[in-house]
Amino acid sequence: MSKWVYGFGGGRAEGRADMKNLLGGKGANLAEMANLGIPVPPGFTIPTEVCTYYYSNGNTYPAALIEQVAEALNRVEEIMGAKFGDAANPLLVSVRSGARASMPGMMDTILNLGLNDVSVEGLAKRSGDARFAYDSYRRFIQMYSDVVLGVEHHHFEDILEEAKTDRDITLDTELTADDWKKVVGKYKDKVLAQLGAPFPQDVHDQLWGAVGAVFGSWMNQRAITYRRLHDIPEIWGTAVNVQAMVFGNMGDDCCTGVCFTRDPSNGDNDFYGEFLVNAQGEDVVAGIRTPQQLTKHGRELQRSDLPSMEEVMPEVFRELNAIRHKLEAHYTDMQDMEFTVQQKRLWMLQTRTGKRTTNAALKIAVDMAREGLITRKEAIGRIDPAALDQLLHPTLDPKAERNLLARGLPASPGAASGKVVFSAEDAEAWVKDKKEQVILVRIETSPEDIGGMHVSQGILTTRGGMTSHAAVVARGMGTPCVAGCGEVRVDYAAKTLKVAGRVVSEGDVITIDGGTGEVFLGAVPTVQPELTGDFATLMEWVDTIRILKVRANAETPTDAATARKFGAEGIGLCRTEHMFFAPERILAVREMILAANEKGRRTALAKLLPFQRQDFTDLFNIMQGLPVTIRLLDPPLHEFLPHTDAEIDEIAAAAGVEPDAVKARNASLHESNPMLGHRGCRLGITYPEIYEMQARAIFEAAVQVSRETGRTVTPEIMIPLVGAKKELDILKASIDKVALAVFEESAYQLKYMVGTMIELPRAALLAGQIAESAEFFSFGTNDLTQTTFGMSRDDSGPFLEVYRAKGIYEHDPFAQLDQAGVGELVKIASERGRAARPGLKLGICGEHGGDPSSIAFCQSVGLDYVSCSPYRVPIARLAAAQAALGDAKGSGMH
Amino acid sequence: MSKWVYGFGGGRAEGRADMKNLLGGKGANLAEMANLGIPVPPGFTIPTEVCTYYYSNGNTYPAALIEQVAEALNRVEEIMGAKFGDAANPLLVSVRSGARASMPGMMDTILNLGLNDVSVEGLAKRSGDARFAYDSYRRFIQMYSDVVLGVEHHHFEDILEEAKTDRDITLDTELTADDWKKVVGKYKDKVLAQLGAPFPQDVHDQLWGAVGAVFGSWMNQRAITYRRLHDIPEIWGTAVNVQAMVFGNMGDDCCTGVCFTRDPSNGDNDFYGEFLVNAQGEDVVAGIRTPQQLTKHGRELQRSDLPSMEEVMPEVFRELNAIRHKLEAHYTDMQDMEFTVQQKRLWMLQTRTGKRTTNAALKIAVDMAREGLITRKEAIGRIDPAALDQLLHPTLDPKAERNLLARGLPASPGAASGKVVFSAEDAEAWVKDKKEQVILVRIETSPEDIGGMHVSQGILTTRGGMTSHAAVVARGMGTPCVAGCGEVRVDYAAKTLKVAGRVVSEGDVITIDGGTGEVFLGAVPTVQPELTGDFATLMEWVDTIRILKVRANAETPTDAATARKFGAEGIGLCRTEHMFFAPERILAVREMILAANEKGRRTALAKLLPFQRQDFTDLFNIMQGLPVTIRLLDPPLHEFLPHTDAEIDEIAAAAGVEPDAVKARNASLHESNPMLGHRGCRLGITYPEIYEMQARAIFEAAVQVSRETGRTVTPEIMIPLVGAKKELDILKASIDKVALAVFEESAYQLKYMVGTMIELPRAALLAGQIAESAEFFSFGTNDLTQTTFGMSRDDSGPFLEVYRAKGIYEHDPFAQLDQAGVGELVKIASERGRAARPGLKLGICGEHGGDPSSIAFCQSVGLDYVSCSPYRVPIARLAAAQAALGDAKGSGMH
Repeated sequence: MSKWVYGFGGGRAEGRADMKNLLGGKGANLAEMANLGIPVPPGFTIPTEVCTYYYSNGNTYPAALIEQVAEALNRVEEIMGAKFGDAANPLLVSVRSGARASMPGMMDTILNLGLNDVSVEGLAKRSGDARFAYDSYRRFIQMYSDVVLGVEHHHFEDILEEAKTDRDITLDTELTADDWKKVVGKYKDKVLAQLGAPFPQDVHDQLWGAVGAVFGSWMNQRAITYRRLHDIPEIWGTAVNVQAMVFGNMGDDCCTGVCFTRDPSNGDNDFYGEFLVNAQGEDVVAGIRTPQQLTKHGRELQRSDLPSMEEVMPEVFRELNAIRHKLEAHYTDMQDMEFTVQQKRLWMLQTRTGKRTTNAALKIAVDMAREGLITRKEAIGRIDPAALDQLLHPTLDPKAERNLLARGLPASPGAASGKVVFSAEDAEAWVKDKKEQVILVRIETSPEDIGGMHVSQGILTTRGGMTSHAAVVARGMGTPCVAGCGEVRVDYAAKTLKVAGRVVSEGDVITIDGGTGEVFLGAVPTVQPELTGDFATLMEWVDTIRILKVRANAETPTDAATARKFGAEGIGLCRTEHMFFAPERILAVREMILAANEKGRRTALAKLLPFQRQDFTDLFNIMQGLPVTIRLLDPPLHEFLPHTDAEIDEIAAAAGVEPDAVKARNASLHESNPMLGHRGCRLGITYPEIYEMQARAIFEAAVQVSRETGRTVTPEIMIPLVGAKKELDILKASIDKVALAVFEESAYQLKYMVGTMIELPRAALLAGQIAESAEFFSFGTNDLTQTTFGMSRDDSGPFLEVYRAKGIYEHDPFAQLDQAGVGELVKIASERGRAARPGLKLGICGEHGGDPSSIAFCQSVGLDYVSCSPYRVPIARLAAAQAALGDAKGSGMH
Repeated sequence: MSKWVYGFGGGRAEGRADMKNLLGGKGANLAEMANLGIPVPPGFTIPTEVCTYYYSNGNTYPAALIEQVAEALNRVEEIMGAKFGDAANPLLVSVRSGARASMPGMMDTILNLGLNDVSVEGLAKRSGDARFAYDSYRRFIQMYSDVVLGVEHHHFEDILEEAKTDRDITLDTELTADDWKKVVGKYKDKVLAQLGAPFPQDVHDQLWGAVGAVFGSWMNQRAITYRRLHDIPEIWGTAVNVQAMVFGNMGDDCCTGVCFTRDPSNGDNDFYGEFLVNAQGEDVVAGIRTPQQLTKHGRELQRSDLPSMEEVMPEVFRELNAIRHKLEAHYTDMQDMEFTVQQKRLWMLQTRTGKRTTNAALKIAVDMAREGLITRKEAIGRIDPAALDQLLHPTLDPKAERNLLARGLPASPGAASGKVVFSAEDAEAWVKDKKEQVILVRIETSPEDIGGMHVSQGILTTRGGMTSHAAVVARGMGTPCVAGCGEVRVDYAAKTLKVAGRVVSEGDVITIDGGTGEVFLGAVPTVQPELTGDFATLMEWVDTIRILKVRANAETPTDAATARKFGAEGIGLCRTEHMFFAPERILAVREMILAANEKGRRTALAKLLPFQRQDFTDLFNIMQGLPVTIRLLDPPLHEFLPHTDAEIDEIAAAAGVEPDAVKARNASLHESNPMLGHRGCRLGITYPEIYEMQARAIFEAAVQVSRETGRTVTPEIMIPLVGAKKELDILKASIDKVALAVFEESAYQLKYMVGTMIELPRAALLAGQIAESAEFFSFGTNDLTQTTFGMSRDDSGPFLEVYRAKGIYEHDPFAQLDQAGVGELVKIASERGRAARPGLKLGICGEHGGDPSSIAFCQSVGLDYVSCSPYRVPIARLAAAQAALGDAKGSGMH
């Protein structure tokens, strides 16, 4: 016969901590504590298997469950020396959910179950406190009716209000036992009136009602939403824990509290916690009374007037402190515990691995490794790479007041305040001329806004997702960004933004938190990040473990310097087009685009050459011999053309043509789907002189820096959007020719590589041919995801949310690499590429290069390096180490 | 030692007809004729291998070549009884190119080689005609100097003009032997003056100069362009044929001519040809003299006053006629021959398979099969499927005068005249109200132009390629279309088009030829196609051979009826969105898009339901039980919204909203890359009610037609743009629910299938999962090509031409399936799909479904059917038969 119930208590248990999948986190840890000899109120767990059974069998239970529950309940009665529903010495129980992953507050809980008109008298007698007994009874009726019977809370609140009004008092505590007795009567009448049936007096009916309610709550809307947000599969189900009640509110020798084996906010190895004398757990949560500190040290730190537990209940405190050490040593991690003291007797109600700030996580992991509690490898595995991000940016001062205006997507972490401007030009002007700090607010951004984005403290857009232009560029720059803030309406003409009736004008100050997506009116003070010694220590350990190299995507000297600071081992993607938007360059770029023929284009390109050469000279100098992969021009030319009349007039005058000619060129370059248009190496094929100029700039810079520093630069030139070997052959031949010319002119030779992006499905499939010519591959997984899914990053917002809600895609494929589809192409290309050219260098330079689960995938298919934005380099280093340790979770997508 | 020279003549030869790759077409056939005992002037062929050697060895020859040529030349001298360069009896030779594929006029030819100041006297004596000898010498100097020495033609023309002026005569024929002698002297002086060296007198120098010139001409610009246009690889090279000269201009017992074993214009089994008495081949080509007919029958047909060869040279004619029969029987195909009669002796100079009109090709193939000369299978293999297209549409009367205006792409075959209109609305109004025939002229077309395109006689666009919207829709409708006519400038405001200074206004008549891409001013009469008995016969044979089924892409009753007429075995793609643009429907569609919520959308959709049901009722009735695959709504919703102010006001009024709300919706639906946006099944997922309405319309129509006709309809419902199994699962469940409801309401059951397009790389890769839910796959290779290449069909024009010119893509991948990339995905999807669901029905419904080489590929990967536009159904049937016979050529792409 299947085992449907697992008992615990009285110094032993049928479960264990490692049976979390079956018993849920709470049940498994209760069993574990019982086995360790730690005092837990006895009880039993109905495992998650029953939940699965329940949902796949039309909300029914396995046949043997009722009998097994009865047996387990008997054991609890024996241990507690009380009887369920008994008139003299009634056993009361709690019924709680307990899923494999913590889902705090998402599912239902029933306390004080087992009370009825008879047993309440027994409780009154045994506790010697009728007021307590009837208060417990009315709490039970209220909770049970709400959760199990569906009688809404407010009905009971009204009755309670009435009772207090009748007595002309304001606090619950002023009500007497008799008052509560009357309230209980009225509660029962209300249930009868609402349901046409009395409140159940049979305690077994009560129990089964509560169990059903807990299983039912697995599918309530809150729980469904929570699971979606936290990637928890529905199939896991929840367990139900039935456990003897203990009371922290039976007098002043009672208390209840929560504690952590170390300080969860800073990680210090101090016993940390709070408790309330003569109170129940819900009183701690409700926050009506001010809790007292557990330790004297804690009380002093908090400058609290209330005595600590260490001082008022020294013996129980010693017992609790011993349990603290026992549990942390046993679980080898910081524990979050709940306890109740009933008449001087300590009961542990829960232990679990405690949540902590990222700073605390770092300190605890490093400390524990030093203490010998865990290994360095374990310490590395303890840190969530994604959470590191918050350490690298300023954050809002947690104590500061704030006036929430709107909420968008947390697109680039960090917090910043500034005056609102509505155009990139204004941003540049305000910063330069007025020396103001600004927040750039746009419906969406485009490459021509780069200058303005660069000088802004933060960026707010009303459209676009986590991988929109604004988000990607902002993350690359380390600038805070809130994207896709749909409730905000921008009026460019009026220079205002409106949200829910509130109007913010140009020059008004706002604050954005790119880590949460929140936007506040006014300035909110921020706290600067400190990369503590623990951070540095962990990063050192990380670098001894990982196999994948980590590079950064960077094109400006600032980005490159940041990348080095964060430990990047080279530049994996330098996007040369970003260099073309500076005011002194864009005119020459536009002149090139408007030129009537190749001669005209070459004349304009000659003006760009010195700028471009200086760009690379700077990068090579900063990177000090580390590899630099430079991608030649990628975006379609129309991205560089002006669209306002004033700009059109300016460029027309400069180029010596009519404004209409500029407009005509604009029109002729218009594309229905620019993503799939005349861009990437297609530009190099149709206008060879562009790539020739870029290659010349690279080689001249490389020669100059090598010669001046004595440190040889080995440029890696990368051709974008290749779909056929012959594209690469033609362009490589042209680059080789330029190299030869520069080496002859300068009487200096150096090595270089020519490789390609793999960002089209065709390139992945034909990787074997392409690798015959390419000396390296870099997977451009942004575009590869767009083409493989046939889904534009910029346009997918409206349906991607629905897709995630309906479970079609578990993750945003632009944030987390789709292993089933895009991943197969990466694998195919890697295999075919390496088969054609053994040792072919493979890397990834899409947004996924900074995503931990994608990094694990990159390791699994044998890439040599990942490249990500500078601020994600530490994250990638950690994720790479975890991947090497095999700790990272895989990504699933159906 | 390698063999570098292949001799022929004197009743035997070292080559054969099947050595065409080595000897070129001309050389192989000369050898074959020699072996057959047919009189050919003796000579030798320097094979294509030498050309390859020449280009891969710095324009040098293999060492043994000179000796082998000398030997071969000796044999020719022996056979002719003359000596090269001899003063008494000189041998003259021609030097001609001869490639594997015919490249008429693209490469160089030298005649009369072997003449110098000495041998010209020998020729004069032997022929007894000094005038002939010196005329030949001056022709030789002129030709050789131009081709080999680079002295331009006009220098010699000037001298000739001068000579005639001096003598005060106008015709060359009036010049005497002495005149020619003087001209020769001046020619030689001119060469000396131009080159600083005399005209070569050494005949062996002459020969090697000519051989080098022929090899050199393989890489001249004309030849390179021709090869690109005709897909001839450069690596093939050309052979050189050196052959004894024979003269048709040595008197009235001499002649020269060309002839065909059957009539190449209509295919009749009549000996057909022309000849000129006392003339050289170039005189026939020059067209100065009117040629005479070969046969009496021919003379009578042509009502010619000039006597036929049959009448004036009956013996030689009989000999020629015997050779005609011998050659046709030997080659089992219609031959195109050249001959010369020198002093009553017949010499065959060339035979090759003759070019013919498609009508003639059909008749000849069917006749020859009936005559037992070839098998039916061979007859099927003889017809170029693509050429069939010209039989199915009206063509310009070849005799009509025409005034060429411009040239664009031949986007949809057929010729049509009409008055120019510049908008779809005007087209509809002019046709309906004024009963005019119109040609719709647009910069480009969009789905909302469908109505206007439908009523137009022809369509002309200035932008877009062979696979632009206009081209695809026009081919589907069988409407003539010239697309991408870049030289034409359209001014919508002025309602004019301009081309090279000429202005055409609204209402002016133009004619377009969609088979050639030409646009003419005024009306040019057209000729209607006749699907002759031979066509029908061949199609019958075809259907007994082919394995692939052929369906049509059709949505209107007209299209469906056309498809059936052309032999379609079902509808493979019915694009439901095309049904939404009719005036009475578009308003409801827009109301649906503008609705604030699902309820509003359902109200609008309820208005569309009856229309949509009628659409399917009509189709099911026409198709009489043949399968009909219906694709649910595919394009993004913004394609249906109006963009002009007037239209916006209209829809706003109808929907009861402000015009600004319409504009706001327009803006909110705007997409950067609509091709990769919110379309296909993404609409079905986000707005389930749209697909529900369509499914209901399909099932209600199917029930009604099945019940009324007693012929069961089995609808095949196709979900577009699927990228994940779960998309299909959700939509299939919804369709199944609608089906159940309709079946219950109507008390009628029928079978149906739900399948999916495979048009995204991800769908192809995950085909195994998708096939668990999909009952059929239809490859949407248009979109699959766009996503696999990352290349928008609409935007690729500007670079695709350059790509083809540089040899990156040999073919337009939108016209001919890219087997290496897209093809691999089709293969992967087919294999994985069939592995998951054995017997899974597979088809293709992209433009490639009507392309012969792509059809061969479809057969090779095991598809069940191809679906193409109705007018291409016969082409697809023929191509499918050829694929079954293994005759189709593969497609190459690097």
